[in-house]
Amino acid sequence: MTTTSRNVVSTLGADGKLTVELVEEEIADPVGHEVLLRIDAAAINPSDLGLMFGPALLDQAEFSPGKIVAPMPEAAVKALSGRVGDAIRVGNEGAGTVIAAGEEPEAQALIGKRVSGRPGGLFSNYRIADARTCMELPEDLPIESAAASFVNPMTAVCFVETMRQEGFKGLVHTAAASNLGQMLAKLCKEEGIPLVNVVRKPEQAEILRSIGMEHIVDSSQDDFNASLIEAIEATGALLAFDAIGGGNMASRLLSAMDAVCMKGAAYNRYGSEEMKKVYIYGTLDFGPTILDRSFGFTWDVSGWLVMRYFMSLPKDRQDWVRERIVKGLRSTFASKFKHRITLDELFQREVAIACNAKTTGEKYLLTPNG
Amino acid sequence: MTTTSRNVVSTLGADGKLTVELVEEEIADPVGHEVLLRIDAAAINPSDLGLMFGPALLDQAEFSPGKIVAPMPEAAVKALSGRVGDAIRVGNEGAGTVIAAGEEPEAQALIGKRVSGRPGGLFSNYRIADARTCMELPEDLPIESAAASFVNPMTAVCFVETMRQEGFKGLVHTAAASNLGQMLAKLCKEEGIPLVNVVRKPEQAEILRSIGMEHIVDSSQDDFNASLIEAIEATGALLAFDAIGGGNMASRLLSAMDAVCMKGAAYNRYGSEEMKKVYIYGTLDFGPTILDRSFGFTWDVSGWLVMRYFMSLPKDRQDWVRERIVKGLRSTFASKFKHRITLDELFQREVAIACNAKTTGEKYLLTPNG
Repeated sequence: MTTTSRNVVSTLGADGKLTVELVEEEIADPVGHEVLLRIDAAAINPSDLGLMFGPALLDQAEFSPGKIVAPMPEAAVKALSGRVGDAIRVGNEGAGTVIAAGEEPEAQALIGKRVSGRPGGLFSNYRIADARTCMELPEDLPIESAAASFVNPMTAVCFVETMRQEGFKGLVHTAAASNLGQMLAKLCKEEGIPLVNVVRKPEQAEILRSIGMEHIVDSSQDDFNASLIEAIEATGALLAFDAIGGGNMASRLLSAMDAVCMKGAAYNRYGSEEMKKVYIYGTLDFGPTILDRSFGFTWDVSGWLVMRYFMSLPKDRQDWVRERIVKGLRSTFASKFKHRITLDELFQREVAIACNAKTTGEKYLLTPNG
Repeated sequence: MTTTSRNVVSTLGADGKLTVELVEEEIADPVGHEVLLRIDAAAINPSDLGLMFGPALLDQAEFSPGKIVAPMPEAAVKALSGRVGDAIRVGNEGAGTVIAAGEEPEAQALIGKRVSGRPGGLFSNYRIADARTCMELPEDLPIESAAASFVNPMTAVCFVETMRQEGFKGLVHTAAASNLGQMLAKLCKEEGIPLVNVVRKPEQAEILRSIGMEHIVDSSQDDFNASLIEAIEATGALLAFDAIGGGNMASRLLSAMDAVCMKGAAYNRYGSEEMKKVYIYGTLDFGPTILDRSFGFTWDVSGWLVMRYFMSLPKDRQDWVRERIVKGLRSTFASKFKHRITLDELFQREVAIACNAKTTGEKYLLTPNG
């Protein structure tokens, strides 16, 4: 027997056009450790949008039922040449109900249960996953939290783990009013970690104020640099996680950190001796990262990927991360979505463009089976 | 008794003008561990030029005997606000003869000897140093090598030490035909370390070819990216030391490294999993560092300072670094200078501008006592 599924697939053509479409597939019955998930809901995260649409020009795209064909900026086609011709499934995280299972006991034990996992390609009606990598979810966990129980909670917990592992005493986070940012804010509060929340709009500052955050700085304000220095001084936060990537945010963060470290010290053209670090983990801005190096020589800017970081941890720390996630699924890591859409609705012009705008507070939940 | 000395001092005024001048000073006789050095020769390194002139507009400066007053670009004044009003002595490395010493045996033992050390302010006739930080030099070591026995040799040896400490298998070096670059090239050959030499002009490539270097790539050539990828593939060098700082060199190095790591692999929008790293240790280009992030998420760009790195090493590794330097003073680390100038000549318009141009193969040696 097989099960018919429709899957969201993104393909960049050699002609520089990106095609996103619903592709039908027959899924064979699960065997061994496999389980067959009926996808209840999948979160549409920035990382999914990056894979699905990337820098494609959606406003110039052709839309038809189950199909979007969009031009790509020329520079992007070059940068993405590695994926030309690859049909890539989309959907990093979601929750599904196990409706069939292979013969192994670990698989059989999950029949009828709701689980989250990371098989990828979750923007689908059905998907095969490995039972050993699934996380069983409480039956009464709201579907929204279930759908978003993996990427953001793990990212927030791994930010904290990175900070502790590297001996920093506080964190700076940009795009701090995002779903992830709010989770991190609550987590830091619970763990007693000083956090500087950097936002880009007054209404985002308001979101964080409403959940009791103390150090909120708004880069759209004239006094941003002074406020940032003040907040970093108050928190001692010399490690930042930056979701923006492009532009001069990393540079401004490092300059502010250096200014705090140099307060009261004699001039030193090499800057302060304390390590000041920014991890770039997102690409809200596809433009280049611009570092003016006005912050001496003891600094570090690095890329950061949650799964590579998590896999690099020793077993006992991985266990701690998982336990910390489960502990907070109904509180710290509870998720809300503003919009629910079906697979078909994702291919409507207005929906696709609004969803891809990644507007704070406007997150989309995909419910592939209605 | 006192000794009269003239010292090069650089001061940035609140009005945004930089004054570099010869300042007379009476030096008290040495006591305790102190020794009084008559400076035989001091190397004029890029780091000295950075402190002395920085981004000042020398072509618009007023020159008079023993005094240069130069305007600074507005952005630079802001970046350098920390040094406004500080009278900063110049001269990081040089060799001098001990002509008087404090009563301590370590100091007395050096009387009449030629030493190098790092008291700073060596662009002077005389200077006090701590005997315990001086390195005694062989009497017959040529004065040029003696004058340059500290900063560049230590930097080259510490590049190698960093590479080994972090588990990399080869090095990329930019501005590779510099004095330092040639030392590194010889050192890597002796130590069996694969090295990619990146230069900016054909004549610089020729210099490296003449000392037997194999992997030389010229960023002024059209096939630079392809040649760079080829050289990185041949050497496995995923760690670079960049003297340029500004512009997109770091970005191009990381892109080439990622391209090598991704060869034959399936497309991965997160880039290759191997760590790819660039240390920025110089500022030949004062402009911003521009990273296009076309190299995935497993990368690192950091500032690097030789003395901070050296001081972070455990004692046994510091000893190894010192021994490796002494071993190579007549060969690997022998220095040549194109020009010799006196303290007074440094303040002549043509000399100051030519010296500050940091042209490869045109290094200046300062002989303060003629």
